[in-house]
Amino acid sequence: MTLVLDLFSPGLNRLLDTFLDEDLGRGDLTSIIDNNLSVKANLVAKQQGVFCGGPLIERLFQRLDGVVIIRRLVADGEGFAIGQKLLELQGPAMTLLAGERTALNLAMHLSGIATATASLVAQLEGTPAKYADTRKTTPGLRILEKYAVRCGGGVNHRLGLDDAAMLKENHIAWSGGIEPAVRALQKTIPWPSRLIVEAETSMEAEEAARLGVDGVLLDEFSPVALKALVPKLRELALLAESKGGPGRIVLEASGVDSTNLKQYAFTGVDFISSSASITKSTWIDISMRFDKNV
Amino acid sequence: MTLVLDLFSPGLNRLLDTFLDEDLGRGDLTSIIDNNLSVKANLVAKQQGVFCGGPLIERLFQRLDGVVIIRRLVADGEGFAIGQKLLELQGPAMTLLAGERTALNLAMHLSGIATATASLVAQLEGTPAKYADTRKTTPGLRILEKYAVRCGGGVNHRLGLDDAAMLKENHIAWSGGIEPAVRALQKTIPWPSRLIVEAETSMEAEEAARLGVDGVLLDEFSPVALKALVPKLRELALLAESKGGPGRIVLEASGVDSTNLKQYAFTGVDFISSSASITKSTWIDISMRFDKNV
Amino acid sequence: MTLVLDLFSPGLNRLLDTFLDEDLGRGDLTSIIDNNLSVKANLVAKQQGVFCGGPLIERLFQRLDGVVIIRRLVADGEGFAIGQKLLELQGPAMTLLAGERTALNLAMHLSGIATATASLVAQLEGTPAKYADTRKTTPGLRILEKYAVRCGGGVNHRLGLDDAAMLKENHIAWSGGIEPAVRALQKTIPWPSRLIVEAETSMEAEEAARLGVDGVLLDEFSPVALKALVPKLRELALLAESKGGPGRIVLEASGVDSTNLKQYAFTGVDFISSSASITKSTWIDISMRFDKNV
Amino acid sequence: MTLVLDLFSPGLNRLLDTFLDEDLGRGDLTSIIDNNLSVKANLVAKQQGVFCGGPLIERLFQRLDGVVIIRRLVADGEGFAIGQKLLELQGPAMTLLAGERTALNLAMHLSGIATATASLVAQLEGTPAKYADTRKTTPGLRILEKYAVRCGGGVNHRLGLDDAAMLKENHIAWSGGIEPAVRALQKTIPWPSRLIVEAETSMEAEEAARLGVDGVLLDEFSPVALKALVPKLRELALLAESKGGPGRIVLEASGVDSTNLKQYAFTGVDFISSSASITKSTWIDISMRFDKNV
Amino acid sequence: MTLVLDLFSPGLNRLLDTFLDEDLGRGDLTSIIDNNLSVKANLVAKQQGVFCGGPLIERLFQRLDGVVIIRRLVADGEGFAIGQKLLELQGPAMTLLAGERTALNLAMHLSGIATATASLVAQLEGTPAKYADTRKTTPGLRILEKYAVRCGGGVNHRLGLDDAAMLKENHIAWSGGIEPAVRALQKTIPWPSRLIVEAETSMEAEEAARLGVDGVLLDEFSPVALKALVPKLRELALLAESKGGPGRIVLEASGVDSTNLKQYAFTGVDFISSSASITKSTWIDISMRFDKNV
Amino acid sequence: MTLVLDLFSPGLNRLLDTFLDEDLGRGDLTSIIDNNLSVKANLVAKQQGVFCGGPLIERLFQRLDGVVIIRRLVADGEGFAIGQKLLELQGPAMTLLAGERTALNLAMHLSGIATATASLVAQLEGTPAKYADTRKTTPGLRILEKYAVRCGGGVNHRLGLDDAAMLKENHIAWSGGIEPAVRALQKTIPWPSRLIVEAETSMEAEEAARLGVDGVLLDEFSPVALKALVPKLRELALLAESKGGPGRIVLEASGVDSTNLKQYAFTGVDFISSSASITKSTWIDISMRFDKNV
Repeated sequence: MTLVLDLFSPGLNRLLDTFLDEDLGRGDLTSIIDNNLSVKANLVAKQQGVFCGGPLIERLFQRLDGVVIIRRLVADGEGFAIGQKLLELQGPAMTLLAGERTALNLAMHLSGIATATASLVAQLEGTPAKYADTRKTTPGLRILEKYAVRCGGGVNHRLGLDDAAMLKENHIAWSGGIEPAVRALQKTIPWPSRLIVEAETSMEAEEAARLGVDGVLLDEFSPVALKALVPKLRELALLAESKGGPGRIVLEASGVDSTNLKQYAFTGVDFISSSASITKSTWIDISMRFDKNV
Repeated sequence: MTLVLDLFSPGLNRLLDTFLDEDLGRGDLTSIIDNNLSVKANLVAKQQGVFCGGPLIERLFQRLDGVVIIRRLVADGEGFAIGQKLLELQGPAMTLLAGERTALNLAMHLSGIATATASLVAQLEGTPAKYADTRKTTPGLRILEKYAVRCGGGVNHRLGLDDAAMLKENHIAWSGGIEPAVRALQKTIPWPSRLIVEAETSMEAEEAARLGVDGVLLDEFSPVALKALVPKLRELALLAESKGGPGRIVLEASGVDSTNLKQYAFTGVDFISSSASITKSTWIDISMRFDKNV
Repeated sequence: MTLVLDLFSPGLNRLLDTFLDEDLGRGDLTSIIDNNLSVKANLVAKQQGVFCGGPLIERLFQRLDGVVIIRRLVADGEGFAIGQKLLELQGPAMTLLAGERTALNLAMHLSGIATATASLVAQLEGTPAKYADTRKTTPGLRILEKYAVRCGGGVNHRLGLDDAAMLKENHIAWSGGIEPAVRALQKTIPWPSRLIVEAETSMEAEEAARLGVDGVLLDEFSPVALKALVPKLRELALLAESKGGPGRIVLEASGVDSTNLKQYAFTGVDFISSSASITKSTWIDISMRFDKNV
Repeated sequence: MTLVLDLFSPGLNRLLDTFLDEDLGRGDLTSIIDNNLSVKANLVAKQQGVFCGGPLIERLFQRLDGVVIIRRLVADGEGFAIGQKLLELQGPAMTLLAGERTALNLAMHLSGIATATASLVAQLEGTPAKYADTRKTTPGLRILEKYAVRCGGGVNHRLGLDDAAMLKENHIAWSGGIEPAVRALQKTIPWPSRLIVEAETSMEAEEAARLGVDGVLLDEFSPVALKALVPKLRELALLAESKGGPGRIVLEASGVDSTNLKQYAFTGVDFISSSASITKSTWIDISMRFDKNV
Repeated sequence: MTLVLDLFSPGLNRLLDTFLDEDLGRGDLTSIIDNNLSVKANLVAKQQGVFCGGPLIERLFQRLDGVVIIRRLVADGEGFAIGQKLLELQGPAMTLLAGERTALNLAMHLSGIATATASLVAQLEGTPAKYADTRKTTPGLRILEKYAVRCGGGVNHRLGLDDAAMLKENHIAWSGGIEPAVRALQKTIPWPSRLIVEAETSMEAEEAARLGVDGVLLDEFSPVALKALVPKLRELALLAESKGGPGRIVLEASGVDSTNLKQYAFTGVDFISSSASITKSTWIDISMRFDKNV
Repeated sequence: MTLVLDLFSPGLNRLLDTFLDEDLGRGDLTSIIDNNLSVKANLVAKQQGVFCGGPLIERLFQRLDGVVIIRRLVADGEGFAIGQKLLELQGPAMTLLAGERTALNLAMHLSGIATATASLVAQLEGTPAKYADTRKTTPGLRILEKYAVRCGGGVNHRLGLDDAAMLKENHIAWSGGIEPAVRALQKTIPWPSRLIVEAETSMEAEEAARLGVDGVLLDEFSPVALKALVPKLRELALLAESKGGPGRIVLEASGVDSTNLKQYAFTGVDFISSSASITKSTWIDISMRFDKNV
């Protein structure tokens, strides 16, 4: 499995610096250890789960001063058992201690999301539907949390307000209805950006499909209602192709019961999106164990 | 109840800007609504809990362009019921939509922590012990999450590696033992910074108390063991006063079972610290409801 | 005409600050004028063109200290004649002088792009094809230059490497061919992100269409070759719908002769993309004229 | 020829980071290629021109993660022919692709300016006058564009409002005339900063020369008028030396016809300044060609 | 002697970048020397003093481009004589020249503070009292100046408003008196943060001691008054232990005559704090001498 | 007296934010006072001196949240007596306390420099020479400290390595001598940037004058030697005018005895430059006194 995490970006470096500075503040008061002491340590799982954070921890320690050598034992996106070693570190004791808490907080938080995602994705196994996340992400951590969702086997929804246009209830109300809103957007958005309409009723969904939009998000529909609506929307979308629509519309169910995703999976929707893999996940316990023999 | 959140800091402004930019990216594609349209909205609770985030939301909207007037209906630290209105907003439709998701993500995440904290704190009601947090906080959000812990009735532990000196297992091992480590720190740390030793055995705890440290964190001790140890440590600390110790030592139990804090509360420790209010909390559902009549 | 420029973003404020600091450096040496002197000025066109920059100039002066009142006389995206007043400013003399050069440089550069775009767009009038820009933008100015393209009537292509996935020659070569590359991307990209293949031969284009990609960029094809290829690609794309393709494929001609766009416009492609509106544009001359009577 | 570009500055690093982040955004979606694949590429000229950007591209790739080895084949400031290789790169495929567009945009834009400058400078060959730029530079790029002007053989004018004091029409009007304005500045500016007066009439120029200023910028004077005025100004300046003037005044013609600079060159002015090398330049086409054999 | 300076922090890197950019501005105009020329230089003391800045200079040159090898000859915190070599540098001539002034300014300013501190600390030799600094530090340089105080043998007071809570005259006046203010703070501050009261009268000091605060700062008391007051406060503090006070109170004299600290040292206070080591210190003269033989 | 301090710059805002954040850290722990309490305070001088910092304090409080109204009672550059009120503040108690220490540190440090400068400038009264500063400034504070020098009546030397080109011993040694170094620079520096040579012997000074440089800095010459050398240099410079030199050369004595500047003042040099006003200045004591009656 290939997992995309762009490690080239200077912006990611700055983000990691922010994390380190938050914990180091005006300087680690316990810096009493000889700078030349080199030690070994391992990240060890205290719960089972799906790992996320290896390349980030590598980059995090690069941002600190001393040279730390890291060997990843479990790849991002892979599962691990209790007690399993995830990553090996070797370097100056002071550097390892300076980055320890931040590295662990990152891996524990993100592995928690990857693990929660994997369990939601597992519900959909054997069905044609895919699991997608939302914009409900912890402020400041979106690119990392969305990466954790990918590590858990999920698909990312849009990354921000700028990379897909989703018309919601209020946009529609304040623009005079679905049609004027869609027409306005079709003129102004970049061509590769998709136009998606959030619908709360069948009527809204059908109007959107008729206008040739790229996708419809069906919010809080019952599985029964979805089953009836989906084929109708697909048909309307095909007809809209002659008017410039994409032909095949992307349908997404949201506002779903995340403990029972399977009932939505056979309604014919392409995606089931939920914030649960982030908002309802908790941290996976991981510790850094230093070798006794230095 | 007075809750300290320093709203004066330029650093907080920059943090909120980061959050907004993360969602706005290269610009909201759905900015199709008349800039002059002014609307009203409310933050409404979809679950019960303890609120956290009101002043942050106020400040967040100040960082955006249009003038938004905010009236807080529930104070930070106060409980709320399902369906209760938490905060009222009025301002340009485009500004409210631009900040909506970020404001909600902030309030939902932090109220989740405040609520989880309140339930841990409730376990200690009627006991002399207090609940304290740890440095296990989501990277980039420490000052906000620690504020949420205060909103839930908890006490903050140190804010970073720089504002209290805690000697852990490895510092001790690599400095030649508790005594040399304590002596080294007593010379170098700022005088108002406390010196705390993390102990995993009674022997370590007693050595630390004898050296006149400010506090001992007792990690993964059973309530029974604590009950026996605490008076002994207090006595040793009093004796150490003549050597410059503080006299009254602060004792803290950590590595506890967070579902049953009460058993630790009567052992005589001052604090019971746990990361659970942050690492095991989930988001409280809150939505922004716009008035139909503009 | 509605033109989207997100004025809410803190990031835009920081960008404008950078521009101001670049010119002010360690402080304007000619700050010898009484701080209380209030003056009036106008931005006046010394060439005809299409305007771009009004809201930016407004925001730019808000970032400076003194209160400057601005009245826009020509909207962004509107044409203007030689000698026409574009924007009126009133405020402290020192503030206007501090921002003058930066404001003019911004408006002259962006209006140059809007004007060049408008003339390329005009070539396509009466045809079904639309003009799109590229990622060839001046480093540091992409969101502004893409906004200028919209002001000139063009459509934006993707904003960066992160908001649409375009497979180019080298991605394909290094991933083992079009099919493996497309399959890999279909698994990893966010669902709203389109998958586009850049094709240099008919065979490549057809393979991509058969795989159900969202779009094909046809690079350096002659109008004659395009005319033959387009219907074939549309047909292949329709067939691919059953395999999850979008049905209607988006086709784009690039590497075109920008002095004669019309010949491509009737080949059936949806977009003709070119960097010329930015890389071949020059500045429109605009000056700030201060009122003699203060 | 020695060309000064200060590669030591942390500020330049931050600027290049901004450029990279602008294109990478939240991460390159097409990062599907094996991280260990190392490739070779060349920057190849598709038009003739004067090169600018080699050291910047080197530094740009240093800011990305993978190790890229660069060999410059054409030095900054040197001319090149169509098809000529300008620079050779070797490194991780993903790193080269991540920086490709930004590197090319930088080199194409700056080489366009260097080339335009060289053609303006060529007009002055054999004359005593030198070509100078102005503060009309693309916002955010001034130090780079001024470097490009030097690469094209031009001389830089002041870098910002802070490193030379130029009195313009409005400063003069609002300070009560040339004399009070000059007197005020002579007291407040750093001693190494020159004091220059922009004159639109002979009378103004003569008054300035009489006051012992360092330079006069003669705006929109005809070559005939300049020829008569220059010796007079030089004489007045010499007389002003006894009052603290520099003796030899620097004279500069601006507002000139950039297609015919030679007519100004023999009037005796020291500099002919024009924004044309920046505002009227267009990009030079350069591409990055990857080696087929990896 | 172990001196804590946290060299791991990304924040320190950014601070040093700021210093370098301040001097380099838009680029060193005198960069005319061959980039390949490697030279040697020494930092040489032109006055005697206590050194501070070695690790900072090392880090500073790491932030510049060329590889500079540094050998420290005098450790931070060590004294040096006139003419003594403090630090040896070898690297590209242009890099050394680019960092020279900033490195010297840093070392001269900080060594001035270390030297002044050492002379204040020397006054207290043989006494039980320690010398502490204050928050009167040059804006932007606090962590560095406090490090210099440690180099001179002093102890740091709190690092900012956030790492110890000191109630001053106005907090007390505006909170309704010492008791309500202390009670409010005891509830809200992190547990490791000490609570200190600034007292201007014996009555205030006694009230604070009775309330079980961690420390009292005794402002502008005479040595005679202190001698009488100190034992009383210690006694009150011991009695307050039963109410949760620390038992041993920390007492600090401030507002002292810094030319005669000894008279305060035998009054029984733990600390004598003064801003003099920073606000009354002047720079120690140090120069960079380049080897004649390159 | 007009004193130039550019208050428009966003960069100055960011600098002041840095100062505030340094003291506020993670938030003022003593924020226990009612946010609605509005108070009055005055800055009061506890020593006599020359004031510097009024507009900075005004701007500093604007960067904090609450509205603070400031009335300046003593202008920057004016002298004040012990006990004199310098500036009046009115606003929220919490805002005033949050900014108090930073504002005072700024005013005390800068007024110290202004006062020291004024006393050096006073030595030159009645002489034709002016006092100039150097690049020996506290890292991070150059623009503010140079402003303080102007407040004290001094003249600023160059602001950084980029706004005047000074050839020092090493540049000369490594470029093959004064002539080649001067020739190289005359080609590369911006035309408004002056070219100055630092000379340590008469021979060097004469060679520089002969080459038509703009200025010579005469380092560590005795008053007697200067008196003989100055007229010779002026004569050589006049002769160099025909070769493009400025005619009137600027001569500057440095490395002087700052306790006796007058002896240099009648040697005919234009400037006497010294770092003493910054490196040998100490802080002026100023306090903030809050009104008892709120």
